[in-house]
Amino acid sequence: MIDCGFQGRIYPVNPIAQEILGLRCFGDVRQVLDVVDLAVVAIPAPLVLDVAKACGEKGVRALVVISAGFKETGVEGALLERQLLEICKQYGMKMQGPNCLGIINTSAPLNLSFAAAMPKKGNISFISQSGALGTAVLDWALKEDLGLANFISLGNKADLDEIDFIEAMVEDPEVRVIIIYVESIEEGERFLEIAKRSVKQKPIIVLKGGISSAGARAAGSHTGAMVGSFTAYQTAFKQSGVITAQNVEELFNYAVTFSTQPIPRGNSVAIITNAGGPGILATDMCEALGVRLASLSKETVRKLGEKLPSSSSVHNPVDVLGDARSDRYRATVEDVLSDAAVSSLIVVLSPQAMTESLETAKTLVDLSRGQNKPILAVFMGGRAVEEASKYLTDNSVPCFEFPEKAVKALSALIQYAEILERPESVHKVLVDVDKNAVQKYIKSARQDGRFVLLPHEAARVIEAYGITVPPIKLATSMEDAVKAAEEIGYPVVLKVVSPEILHKSDIGGIVLNIMSPEAVGEAYNGILTRVSRYMPRAQIYGVLVTKMVPQGMEMIIGVSRDIQFGPLIMFGLGGIYVNFLKDVSFRLAPLSVEDAQDMISETKAHTLLKGVRGEKPSDINALVDILLRVSQLVTDYPEIVEMDINPLFVYEVGRGCIAVDVKITLTKG
Amino acid sequence: MIDCGFQGRIYPVNPIAQEILGLRCFGDVRQVLDVVDLAVVAIPAPLVLDVAKACGEKGVRALVVISAGFKETGVEGALLERQLLEICKQYGMKMQGPNCLGIINTSAPLNLSFAAAMPKKGNISFISQSGALGTAVLDWALKEDLGLANFISLGNKADLDEIDFIEAMVEDPEVRVIIIYVESIEEGERFLEIAKRSVKQKPIIVLKGGISSAGARAAGSHTGAMVGSFTAYQTAFKQSGVITAQNVEELFNYAVTFSTQPIPRGNSVAIITNAGGPGILATDMCEALGVRLASLSKETVRKLGEKLPSSSSVHNPVDVLGDARSDRYRATVEDVLSDAAVSSLIVVLSPQAMTESLETAKTLVDLSRGQNKPILAVFMGGRAVEEASKYLTDNSVPCFEFPEKAVKALSALIQYAEILERPESVHKVLVDVDKNAVQKYIKSARQDGRFVLLPHEAARVIEAYGITVPPIKLATSMEDAVKAAEEIGYPVVLKVVSPEILHKSDIGGIVLNIMSPEAVGEAYNGILTRVSRYMPRAQIYGVLVTKMVPQGMEMIIGVSRDIQFGPLIMFGLGGIYVNFLKDVSFRLAPLSVEDAQDMISETKAHTLLKGVRGEKPSDINALVDILLRVSQLVTDYPEIVEMDINPLFVYEVGRGCIAVDVKITLTKG
Repeated sequence: MIDCGFQGRIYPVNPIAQEILGLRCFGDVRQVLDVVDLAVVAIPAPLVLDVAKACGEKGVRALVVISAGFKETGVEGALLERQLLEICKQYGMKMQGPNCLGIINTSAPLNLSFAAAMPKKGNISFISQSGALGTAVLDWALKEDLGLANFISLGNKADLDEIDFIEAMVEDPEVRVIIIYVESIEEGERFLEIAKRSVKQKPIIVLKGGISSAGARAAGSHTGAMVGSFTAYQTAFKQSGVITAQNVEELFNYAVTFSTQPIPRGNSVAIITNAGGPGILATDMCEALGVRLASLSKETVRKLGEKLPSSSSVHNPVDVLGDARSDRYRATVEDVLSDAAVSSLIVVLSPQAMTESLETAKTLVDLSRGQNKPILAVFMGGRAVEEASKYLTDNSVPCFEFPEKAVKALSALIQYAEILERPESVHKVLVDVDKNAVQKYIKSARQDGRFVLLPHEAARVIEAYGITVPPIKLATSMEDAVKAAEEIGYPVVLKVVSPEILHKSDIGGIVLNIMSPEAVGEAYNGILTRVSRYMPRAQIYGVLVTKMVPQGMEMIIGVSRDIQFGPLIMFGLGGIYVNFLKDVSFRLAPLSVEDAQDMISETKAHTLLKGVRGEKPSDINALVDILLRVSQLVTDYPEIVEMDINPLFVYEVGRGCIAVDVKITLTKG
Repeated sequence: MIDCGFQGRIYPVNPIAQEILGLRCFGDVRQVLDVVDLAVVAIPAPLVLDVAKACGEKGVRALVVISAGFKETGVEGALLERQLLEICKQYGMKMQGPNCLGIINTSAPLNLSFAAAMPKKGNISFISQSGALGTAVLDWALKEDLGLANFISLGNKADLDEIDFIEAMVEDPEVRVIIIYVESIEEGERFLEIAKRSVKQKPIIVLKGGISSAGARAAGSHTGAMVGSFTAYQTAFKQSGVITAQNVEELFNYAVTFSTQPIPRGNSVAIITNAGGPGILATDMCEALGVRLASLSKETVRKLGEKLPSSSSVHNPVDVLGDARSDRYRATVEDVLSDAAVSSLIVVLSPQAMTESLETAKTLVDLSRGQNKPILAVFMGGRAVEEASKYLTDNSVPCFEFPEKAVKALSALIQYAEILERPESVHKVLVDVDKNAVQKYIKSARQDGRFVLLPHEAARVIEAYGITVPPIKLATSMEDAVKAAEEIGYPVVLKVVSPEILHKSDIGGIVLNIMSPEAVGEAYNGILTRVSRYMPRAQIYGVLVTKMVPQGMEMIIGVSRDIQFGPLIMFGLGGIYVNFLKDVSFRLAPLSVEDAQDMISETKAHTLLKGVRGEKPSDINALVDILLRVSQLVTDYPEIVEMDINPLFVYEVGRGCIAVDVKITLTKG
């Protein structure tokens, strides 16, 4: 704290010491005569509660509790942590931690952490749920001379969590990029809301630890945090516009790039290289990541043709040849950057006999000043490019060892540009819904002690929300069944209704394609006979009479409520293909129209829906409408924990969809 | 050459100089009185032919032609290159290049390259088709202190290519790992054969440049090489057991790991870490790459429980806690390595207050001596682990900055262990095939000037190779058609045969489910009437009468002949799903039984074939049999360039398959 150059006053508190590092020491924080803004607590856990109370009484505004020995150690620690949080709330104190490494702010400057040395001042804010990862990265930042605006160790997140710090970082003018290592997000819906808003102002890059089932176990034993399902996290990040890194290196490569480069105005990169091989590798990576190679204008090609040797390649990727000195790089970079078709640039250099690494680096830095197009450098090699690479990095041109890393970082930048362009998502509330009907069925199931709605109840529930289901009636006698069939119209299907019978067709519980009243009667009796023979103890609610609808393309819409993030909606190919092809997409409710459209276009089935081999396209608008209705239903009724419409038949354009089979499960509370 | 410490004699040849660097210079190589083993040619291209001739006359055994100005410059250069190759052949000289950077051998030692400094002696052989990538990597090797056995720049590969050098490296006792950057492989089938044999002795790791269509263009302009389709390359690498790297960094991380670590005896890794976050990241990566976490034995867990602090995790990943010093690492590593359930180990260290980085590194090096289980280290951070990381690397324990890189390298090692375990693939030659029948149909199509066999010809061809097709006859009159139907048995399908009519059903050229002789007559006339109305100029070969077979699961088997690698066989889900789901797998012919089985199990459709939701499993053995028959057919007949069996109906176990529709295309020569 002293060494970092902090300009405020520091009061050590310790019951035994008289003086610490030349500062007078107080036996109790309440003895300090000055106003105390913040207290760093680094004492054994059992003593923390009393100290926190003392801080509260003193009027301290915030605590940084470094002490370990709380939730991460088990039940008793968790109790202690709850008590600590209570004290903080009681006195209106904010708390970081406990069990954290503290906080560093390079512009204050203020180092309230274990870290021995401060990183260089910069504009990257690094928030980490893992203290050890934090230390390693701080150490790495020192070596790489990477500038940070601040470093925040979240610890157990008893009070302040990643969302609070995101909100603060968005307001902090010193911060340009927010990067986060996180293992769990407890307030999923709040995260989604805050992140969605924040990314419009500053990029947020997240590395999520604990994606695997085994990893989740490790996370559990590490911080005692509940780790949500990874699908929900992935969906939340995508939907809110948070950029995800796959590993620590990516996290930092992205951070360096975002912290120095402008946002590109489009997806079209030019590559300038003095070597074929690395140019090919960069091009390969562009194709793999969806980064498009710019088509240089005729004018640019002509200008390059005049300046470059005849065996150069004047098309993108531009090959300035192995004997290119810095002046040839300069002329080429200038021409290419001035081409309106180019929105970003990657410059590759491989050290060869005539190569001027440092001079070329200086040229790039020079040309990058005031540029509104991102420039990324790839200087391959070791000693021959060491000084040049450092020069580039020190002067805000990100420099990578290998082409693939530059392309990856650029693709993240392009992704962010697209996120910024996204329209504000609007959640329209549908009014043509019958809430009373839904309540009635939920209530009746509850009274009956059931958590799974009966098929006709589930059908009525979604019908109340404007989703078409086949005409359907529950019959409890043969006469009922015949009457229902006559009303509905033939052909009909008869199906036994019993929550205990899972595979109805296996025991003859379903009869299809019934064409007459006599056949209905026969089918009714047949079903009951077989059911009573094979499953004599099953509770029978009756027999469902359903209109047999024409075959459509089989889709599925499902909902699963995530503990952290709420209803996770799934869309994809239904029928027997759903389980093994897993051609599905996800979004968290509530959905906007764009969300629903994106869900559909993300699946491979989209190609089928648009119509292949001259087949008529399917009614995609109707699918969008149903997705929105499902979204609203599960948003309106938190007691719906799971839902499956499978199959959902979709017909050709203008003919809509029919939800053939619906299953709805309620909370057990 | 002089500086590198070469022990042999060096004779400079130059028509003007008297002396070069203190060595007497000869005006012509023929004036040298000594025996000349090898000549390095670094003179302008137009002079190379004469010098090559002189070398030939002198009895030189090999040329390294560094000179550029050959095939890579265009048609004239290509002609010059062919002439140069002719001279080499005439005199029985081997040639590396032209347009290459030369060759380095660190054990000779011999530096016949542009590279100023020699890399350290090591056991990695690096073969590169890109000179620039080679220089960059050599420079990088110097900085990282990476040892190489040799470096080979392939250049234009006029004579010696990657396959020749692979063969040489397999024999070189100094070489343990072969790594290759390649943009094209011309002799695909030879590569497959040599590589398959070589990988059983030494691992081969390949980075293929030019995987994208744009990248392929860049490759084309770079070396003038024909770049084959990437699918064929991928398949060739997989099938031969060559390990592929996705980028330069992976190539070298794999090389370092393979060059120092033993091959693991199984897929079960233990992770030891002093920090939760990095442990989670390593675990996540294991799951993503299919590396299995070992279940530690009860005995190990008990031993660790006794030695480690109570809040440690004694299960895998083992967390030795942030305050672990080197002795705690030692005890843990010893116990874990002695567990028979563990086949490899990753040790993660994040520098914290009590951490002894260098001491821990020394401990690991000590414990790694004589180990038969691979040990990989992950020392995260910057300055705090710099010395320790270098110590590890210098002492043959690969050390990575981030956990994901170690796991990736380990997964390659495990992949190689599995390659070594692969049984020798045996290609049985089927004898129950009728070659005369095939020849007859190919001949008749050729005489007819057709490159596409008519449907019944194609059916007869695969039938001759033992593949079941529906009963099928070509009818050229109504009487014929009725007679054919009577012989075949109802129901039948009638289909017009005309190479010019692609979408037969669109113009009513197909009638399904015909049940009687009258209906056959009616259908026959109807088809001809409609065809003559809609496509009056189409050449009609007749009407095909086919037995209508029961619906099976629709699969596809296809063949496409690759210029470099020969017949590439495809297997997957057929019908409307083939194009948009792309659930297909590939192998190059000839297939072994294992190849065919692997092709099937690699597809997602395999789950369907094994039987889902209580459905009966499909006849996978019959599919294997058909794949082998297709493989032999296209191997026996190089004139078949393309083939599609789509749909291939597969039925339940024991009921086989029927090839419903077959298309065969011949070479145009």
